[in-house]
Amino acid sequence: MTYCVGMVLDRGLVFMSDTRTNAGLDNISTFRKMTVWEQPGERVITLMAAGNLATTQAVVSLLDERSKSPEHREPSLLAVPSMFQAARMVAETLREVIDQHGDGGLRSDSTFHATLVIGGQIAGSPPRLFMIYPEGNFIESGQDTPFFQIGETKYGRPILVRAYDPAMSFEAAMKLLVVSFDSTLKANLTVGPPFDFHFYEADSLRVGHRGRIEPEDPYFQQVSKGWGDALKEALEILPDYRFGE
Amino acid sequence: MTYCVGMVLDRGLVFMSDTRTNAGLDNISTFRKMTVWEQPGERVITLMAAGNLATTQAVVSLLDERSKSPEHREPSLLAVPSMFQAARMVAETLREVIDQHGDGGLRSDSTFHATLVIGGQIAGSPPRLFMIYPEGNFIESGQDTPFFQIGETKYGRPILVRAYDPAMSFEAAMKLLVVSFDSTLKANLTVGPPFDFHFYEADSLRVGHRGRIEPEDPYFQQVSKGWGDALKEALEILPDYRFGE
Repeated sequence: MTYCVGMVLDRGLVFMSDTRTNAGLDNISTFRKMTVWEQPGERVITLMAAGNLATTQAVVSLLDERSKSPEHREPSLLAVPSMFQAARMVAETLREVIDQHGDGGLRSDSTFHATLVIGGQIAGSPPRLFMIYPEGNFIESGQDTPFFQIGETKYGRPILVRAYDPAMSFEAAMKLLVVSFDSTLKANLTVGPPFDFHFYEADSLRVGHRGRIEPEDPYFQQVSKGWGDALKEALEILPDYRFGE
Repeated sequence: MTYCVGMVLDRGLVFMSDTRTNAGLDNISTFRKMTVWEQPGERVITLMAAGNLATTQAVVSLLDERSKSPEHREPSLLAVPSMFQAARMVAETLREVIDQHGDGGLRSDSTFHATLVIGGQIAGSPPRLFMIYPEGNFIESGQDTPFFQIGETKYGRPILVRAYDPAMSFEAAMKLLVVSFDSTLKANLTVGPPFDFHFYEADSLRVGHRGRIEPEDPYFQQVSKGWGDALKEALEILPDYRFGE
């Protein structure tokens, strides 16, 4: 499994992904699931992937190759005129990769399926965030659904639903994401640290805060340990039930 | 879907179940998923069911019929010598019902599958809690796994994992369960109120606090609304992340 979250904030776009991949419980590895393309001052695009690792790596490699060799630059993520076209290109590439496996195309029940989140900004337009389904179609985030989760989405969802606020700072958003990821990895062995993050500042058109939170990271440890106590205190605040006799 | 939780506390056994059943999103109904058998002073047994409604209703009706007509009392839930035998009997009844549908027996991928939680106490033994898998085998709770969830278990799990404490009062356990159920129904439309509960006091050998929390219940409203704020305050307590520059 995998857990990735992409969020739209007033301040910009926020991405976090875990790094655990598994083919069976006794065959786990660590792989980066987040890729960032940058044309400084012109565009920054971030892609996160959940699903079959061979599929998602092939998608990223194809997109990457095209963006690196100038003679094959069309079509390239660094050349498309809008984030909508970027999402279409990624979806097309996903289709291309899965078609090669010849098991009948893009289906969420295919062995080779993948779900993707892509977000970023191209000069002249606001930041945008999309989720691409295994079938190759995609949706854009909006005011009512300002974040997307892919992979093991359930354990980490309640805290996102309750505490997300578009006006929150990047520092508070990181805290929220660490809590959401911590709840998930405590419940699902196929989600694991380290966690990659990218906090893109709106209109900067440059890669923002980008890094990795290791399991031994003091901040991660502090939040992971502190959250249990904080939750208990939150419960304390609420009144106990009173049984009618 | 369904959401049921059974917990072992020092004070006794706690059960809560939702009441929503659905055959498609546009065909929802309210059904009780909790059944309690009592022989005052001698035994109290509570059963909760998730899965195919026809299957679980048939299981309960068969168990119920046998416990009501004295001449057919063997085997009956009111006659078995131990909770372990009670769990075996329920599992056998589940097998019987599913075999009648003739789709090849008990399998978790069968259309007619069901998962059950059974707990209670028989005079002379301590309270015990079991979970019965769709395959008909079952496990008992222990110190390391002191509660069972069935149905849509994921959304409501993080708070249970973090805040469960065997020494907690029934009043605090009710609060914890209401929060766990509220998190679940906010995320999954096929889990819905009202919620049935039974709080069995250890060694009382009588039905304990039993009732139903309606969606308009003031306590439910208070906890549901208050929990969002309490969670935000809990997040506030934790330190924000500081990005290294």
